[in-house]
Amino acid sequence: MIYLDNSATTKPYDEVIQSFTKVATTYYGNPSSLHQFGVQAENLMTKSREQVGQLLHVSPKEIIFTSGGTEGNNMAIKGTAMKYRNRGRHIITTAIEHDSVHEPFKQLQELGFDVTYLPVSREGFVDPHDLKDAITAETILVSIMHVNNEIGTIQPIEEIGKILKEYPTVLYHVDHVQGIGKVPLSLRGAHIDLCTISGHKIHGLKGTGILYISQGVELSPLISGGAQELQKRSGTENVPGVVSFAKAMRLTMEHASKNSNKMKKMQSELKSQLEKHERIIMNTPAEGAAPHILNFTVKGIKGEVFVHALEEKGVFVSTTSACSSKRQKPSKTLLGMGKSYEEADQSIRISLSHFNDFNEITPTVNAIFTVIEELKKVMG
Amino acid sequence: MIYLDNSATTKPYDEVIQSFTKVATTYYGNPSSLHQFGVQAENLMTKSREQVGQLLHVSPKEIIFTSGGTEGNNMAIKGTAMKYRNRGRHIITTAIEHDSVHEPFKQLQELGFDVTYLPVSREGFVDPHDLKDAITAETILVSIMHVNNEIGTIQPIEEIGKILKEYPTVLYHVDHVQGIGKVPLSLRGAHIDLCTISGHKIHGLKGTGILYISQGVELSPLISGGAQELQKRSGTENVPGVVSFAKAMRLTMEHASKNSNKMKKMQSELKSQLEKHERIIMNTPAEGAAPHILNFTVKGIKGEVFVHALEEKGVFVSTTSACSSKRQKPSKTLLGMGKSYEEADQSIRISLSHFNDFNEITPTVNAIFTVIEELKKVMG
Repeated sequence: MIYLDNSATTKPYDEVIQSFTKVATTYYGNPSSLHQFGVQAENLMTKSREQVGQLLHVSPKEIIFTSGGTEGNNMAIKGTAMKYRNRGRHIITTAIEHDSVHEPFKQLQELGFDVTYLPVSREGFVDPHDLKDAITAETILVSIMHVNNEIGTIQPIEEIGKILKEYPTVLYHVDHVQGIGKVPLSLRGAHIDLCTISGHKIHGLKGTGILYISQGVELSPLISGGAQELQKRSGTENVPGVVSFAKAMRLTMEHASKNSNKMKKMQSELKSQLEKHERIIMNTPAEGAAPHILNFTVKGIKGEVFVHALEEKGVFVSTTSACSSKRQKPSKTLLGMGKSYEEADQSIRISLSHFNDFNEITPTVNAIFTVIEELKKVMG
Repeated sequence: MIYLDNSATTKPYDEVIQSFTKVATTYYGNPSSLHQFGVQAENLMTKSREQVGQLLHVSPKEIIFTSGGTEGNNMAIKGTAMKYRNRGRHIITTAIEHDSVHEPFKQLQELGFDVTYLPVSREGFVDPHDLKDAITAETILVSIMHVNNEIGTIQPIEEIGKILKEYPTVLYHVDHVQGIGKVPLSLRGAHIDLCTISGHKIHGLKGTGILYISQGVELSPLISGGAQELQKRSGTENVPGVVSFAKAMRLTMEHASKNSNKMKKMQSELKSQLEKHERIIMNTPAEGAAPHILNFTVKGIKGEVFVHALEEKGVFVSTTSACSSKRQKPSKTLLGMGKSYEEADQSIRISLSHFNDFNEITPTVNAIFTVIEELKKVMG
């Protein structure tokens, strides 16, 4: 199997699973319990929080453990919008966000919030000037993804951060799920107030993640109750999951530069081989994209059919994001870039991990070319 | 170590951890992915959902996997209140709910909902007549716990269900976290619309749980996005967690009757030995309590001090719920029953599991009596 669907999910590191198992077996106390058995679990939480804080160059108090990227995005967006709703009801995002940002915005719209969806260029980039123009006295929140999950474009997070610094009452949320470990981003340097990271996209476990919440930023908890996680996210802490997340983060960040370079080279090689084919049109721009995603349209062949034909050859890719693919929704990002419905419907996403290797490139390209030949005949 | 804090959290079954590890290692695909590797993961989700549905005698379509009890309670309460808010804004709960019910109600109150908190008797029971009297034309939701987490009282869930059947526009949510596997409850028989269960209270893993949502009941998703979990709870499914939860549920339900009887006998023995001491006053009523919780006040000794002294003897208990104990909040339930602040502050909760054994009873009682003697001198 050649697994090239790493933006959907990744294989957990062995060490991550070992950490989880160790903690679940031995340190199963409730961190809120007063006795020593609870304190042991609490100490693991503290250590993990410190480790993640260090890796992101922020304070441990700014790290809130969540059940994943979708929870993080929902918590950041709905939590701050509800908290600061009396300050203003205008919120801004882009036309190409992941559903876990897009849907909370739609829910807030139904509750009476006014939403601006920023457009993107034909290459998939947000224009910071558009953002600046969109801000009003009513604006309380801006949410922009770092790396687009469908085509890999890197949004101008730092530049937008600089603009938003001039508007201290506007909060800045960044969905960093596809960027972490692949494209460097300084949370403090980019003046980010809230930032979402997911565990299972960086060889951690599903059901784990964090939301960075800059000190001083408040929110109405999405999940309230026993006041865990600095009163921002209640529920008995998933201690094994938290420890495993810290482990995944450490392994990811320690080798981020080396691994990104490896992916960049693989991506570049794949690209140069694939774009020789007359039926293949690259959707991922040549400049300004993350190292792990390569999106292209195969003219005349439906993406879904292509994915299934390719898996017969042992190569696993996707059409769009995993959650959208199941619902056969064409890529929001490609449509946002002005592509036709047909072009979007015929698109394929390859997403790499550093677990992939150079010797997988030729078999992948060969499989893709063979499948095109085979399907060409069927599709006409 | 004698671990008697099982209402805070339990030791996971070995089989539960093994299931988790197996799935995390081998079937790490994203269930939403179109290819076979995703389909394998999806099949595990389907099988787990079917298994949990069968064990609860409901349809698999009524099972929504969550990150735990607190998420389940938040999702049920806020999700339905927001969904049906145009039908009416009156919601009802009790004075003795867990914080993960209490806090969502408080948040809704801040959003303009009108909340009735039903009182309890001196023994800790809700009176169904009080509920009936509280219902108005504006009522849309009633949330009542099955087994109280602090003193173990079993609330009249079936009787209340019968009353609410006459009000088809009022939804009925039950927090079943402490009841499942200990006190039988028919979800359909009690006309329950929403029911929360947590994994880590039944020897499953932290970060797992379900919300039962009766067919036809809608809610505004707490966590929205990629439309997973029948569009009610988005986010990449924690497949290893889900499989491990189904396993914990099966092991729990298969032996529920035998295990409950064992706990009942241990509880009864503990009770009869402990209540001989002049300083000990039972708070858990003699009738109508679950088999695993025994709450008592040790006159003149602060609960927190008692817990720490007892752990020195190798016996682990708690004061109130784990999340409240850390914040030194006196038991809401005991105060609701009309106990004084002092009585509540001097209370101890023992909570059993079937992993406990009869040979732990005498050492526990001895340790408790010794600690009382030791602290008596200090406290005067």
